Amino acid sequence: MQTRAALLAHCRDRLGAMRREGRYREFAQLEKLAGRFPVYRWHSAAGPREVTVWSSNDYLGMGNHPAVLEAAGRAVAEHGAGAGGTRNISGTSPLHAALEAELAALHGKSGALLFGSGYIANDAAISAVLEALPGFWVFSDAKNHASMIAGMRHAKGATRVIWQHNDLADLEAKLAAAPAGVPKLIAFESVYSMDGDIAPIGAICDLAERHGAITYLDEVHAVGLYGAGGGGISERDGVAARVDLIEGTLAKGFGVFGGYVAGEAELVDFIRSTAGGLIFTTSLPPAVAAAALASVRALRGDAARREALAERAAALKAALDAAGLPRIPGPSHIVPVMVGEAALCREVARRLLEEHGLYATPINYPTVPRGTERLRLCATPFHTDAMIGELVRALRAVLPQRLSAAAA
Amino acid sequence: MQTRAALLAHCRDRLGAMRREGRYREFAQLEKLAGRFPVYRWHSAAGPREVTVWSSNDYLGMGNHPAVLEAAGRAVAEHGAGAGGTRNISGTSPLHAALEAELAALHGKSGALLFGSGYIANDAAISAVLEALPGFWVFSDAKNHASMIAGMRHAKGATRVIWQHNDLADLEAKLAAAPAGVPKLIAFESVYSMDGDIAPIGAICDLAERHGAITYLDEVHAVGLYGAGGGGISERDGVAARVDLIEGTLAKGFGVFGGYVAGEAELVDFIRSTAGGLIFTTSLPPAVAAAALASVRALRGDAARREALAERAAALKAALDAAGLPRIPGPSHIVPVMVGEAALCREVARRLLEEHGLYATPINYPTVPRGTERLRLCATPFHTDAMIGELVRALRAVLPQRLSAAAA
Repeated sequence: MQTRAALLAHCRDRLGAMRREGRYREFAQLEKLAGRFPVYRWHSAAGPREVTVWSSNDYLGMGNHPAVLEAAGRAVAEHGAGAGGTRNISGTSPLHAALEAELAALHGKSGALLFGSGYIANDAAISAVLEALPGFWVFSDAKNHASMIAGMRHAKGATRVIWQHNDLADLEAKLAAAPAGVPKLIAFESVYSMDGDIAPIGAICDLAERHGAITYLDEVHAVGLYGAGGGGISERDGVAARVDLIEGTLAKGFGVFGGYVAGEAELVDFIRSTAGGLIFTTSLPPAVAAAALASVRALRGDAARREALAERAAALKAALDAAGLPRIPGPSHIVPVMVGEAALCREVARRLLEEHGLYATPINYPTVPRGTERLRLCATPFHTDAMIGELVRALRAVLPQRLSAAAA
Repeated sequence: MQTRAALLAHCRDRLGAMRREGRYREFAQLEKLAGRFPVYRWHSAAGPREVTVWSSNDYLGMGNHPAVLEAAGRAVAEHGAGAGGTRNISGTSPLHAALEAELAALHGKSGALLFGSGYIANDAAISAVLEALPGFWVFSDAKNHASMIAGMRHAKGATRVIWQHNDLADLEAKLAAAPAGVPKLIAFESVYSMDGDIAPIGAICDLAERHGAITYLDEVHAVGLYGAGGGGISERDGVAARVDLIEGTLAKGFGVFGGYVAGEAELVDFIRSTAGGLIFTTSLPPAVAAAALASVRALRGDAARREALAERAAALKAALDAAGLPRIPGPSHIVPVMVGEAALCREVARRLLEEHGLYATPINYPTVPRGTERLRLCATPFHTDAMIGELVRALRAVLPQRLSAAAA
């Protein structure tokens, strides 16, 4: 077989099919403008143009916080551009160590460990834990992120059981049906990224204790945003101490880059000592560690910013509801607007951008199930009432009438 | 079963065993000092102390290049600390696009794609290619990096055949023994990180063409360092056009952070459109993209820096040989010194650091096979003759006499 010809023909076919289905992804070139967030400069074929971004995961605008930028700039000048090695090969600076101590403290845990991303943190930590004991059973919420699923799949010998999303009765039935003698892990998220709903963490911990299971909680869409000190939903609900491993990101609420897990020091040390994805990869640049450290420290004391986020999210939801737009209801800062077809979703996003100067990412399969394609909106503390009004008018103009049937 | 108690007991056991075997890793806290490379500030229990680092993968010191630092600092000020989203969710800036274009040009390819690290690039790109066609056979050099092996393992349905390291006859025999009708991929590296030897790329491409296979080449320890424009060994040997996918890093020779693959645009677009590890992760910070772009541009025209690296590596090798130290011979800039026992290797490294102010990472299992534990040294253009002399004297002092039997 001539592999090259066969492979290229397959690539052409697959890319063609994606285009026909409306789920071929083109990455819009968006230039972040420090100090003007959420206004970006969009570089289109017709030239640059300023647009308002409604789909940033820099939920609190910390990527533009003066103390964060100052820390990053200073670290570049003092320590250079890159770490120059893995954590084990001259790539651990005092900044990395301080950031890990800060993250452990954020979650009230005795240990924390940095990774290159939240994706890698989930993949590496979950697979390391599941391979630690023979015959592990992992109970995975049906809407868990791809990176958690990767960690479960990559664990040799583990049995994966999927429970219905946020359904305590289903989880309990499945825990009860598992053999009594096997080790068990319940893996779930706090805020689910694409729906914006929130898990009942305390009740899940109750079930875990009843069935001798440990718990792994992904808080990437919650850290920095919820809890008195930004420790996430587990802090808000007063249950962080009952969760064995809390995974988070420095790239969303904290506005920088990288991921981590926090938990009991010995367990975290075990993951550090066995997780291949950590050992064999260059550590985060000193400037990234410095910026993240500044962001975590600033945000732990900045409840006003968290309150502003909650207020802006409520204002966005109220405006969408008043206009009869098809919002998926939910208690978090994530505000999805249902479209339901891949090609239409992409077309709506294209028109928002080109005709209205508003950027909202179309979310298609495989990120969400087919038939539930959506726009995913987030109002940060920097989105004004005027911006919300502009967005609502534009959505009414570009969404088909049948989708806003409940409209006044 | 009480999973928590069982897991923590297992963690304690495993960590205890690692300590007894001498392969428990403690990360030395080393503060990179911009402008003073390779001098770092080591933060020991006894307080800070300046040391010379001999184990940085910032092979050319580009992490301290003024143009690179300037680009990073400017991008922080202009674009903030983080990208704020995945490539698909407002995380593609013009800097990311320009960097991909530059990397494609570096390797003479029509496409390139950024990843969060070289590890992720290998994992995602290899598994995406191997899952593209049914029944893929992948022929993997026995010394391939853990990240390439991860990509092969994560590909469902692919058959993995391991050929003896850099052994063309073994590769040919294994290609010939595979079914004629299956798609085939040969996966290998150019410079092998732990031994410092170099693959016969052209001869491997000959075999690939004869057997209808495609080729995947990991150049992470070569990009920036070899070839007229820093395109790696494939450029140096004039065979880049014959390699289907070239994978590289921005974190070693280029001194920053991140990884990439380069190849035919349609194949790269296919990987972009299917690789989960890319789609579901925050894109590199604008400042990282800016620094990497400045580094690649500067280094493409800086042959003098590459020549200085080659000259310094030769000087280090000559000095080790003259002192009768147990160097593993090889043609590259990577200079391993064989120790052969995990505990001894760690002890030698400890004494170098504590008694002589020299940092060299002990390389133990699983990075290298047991019984081949070593120190891995790299002389950058910034390591002086005086530093080499200091290192040789220190190694003679701390290495057992039996290891330097050939000494004068």
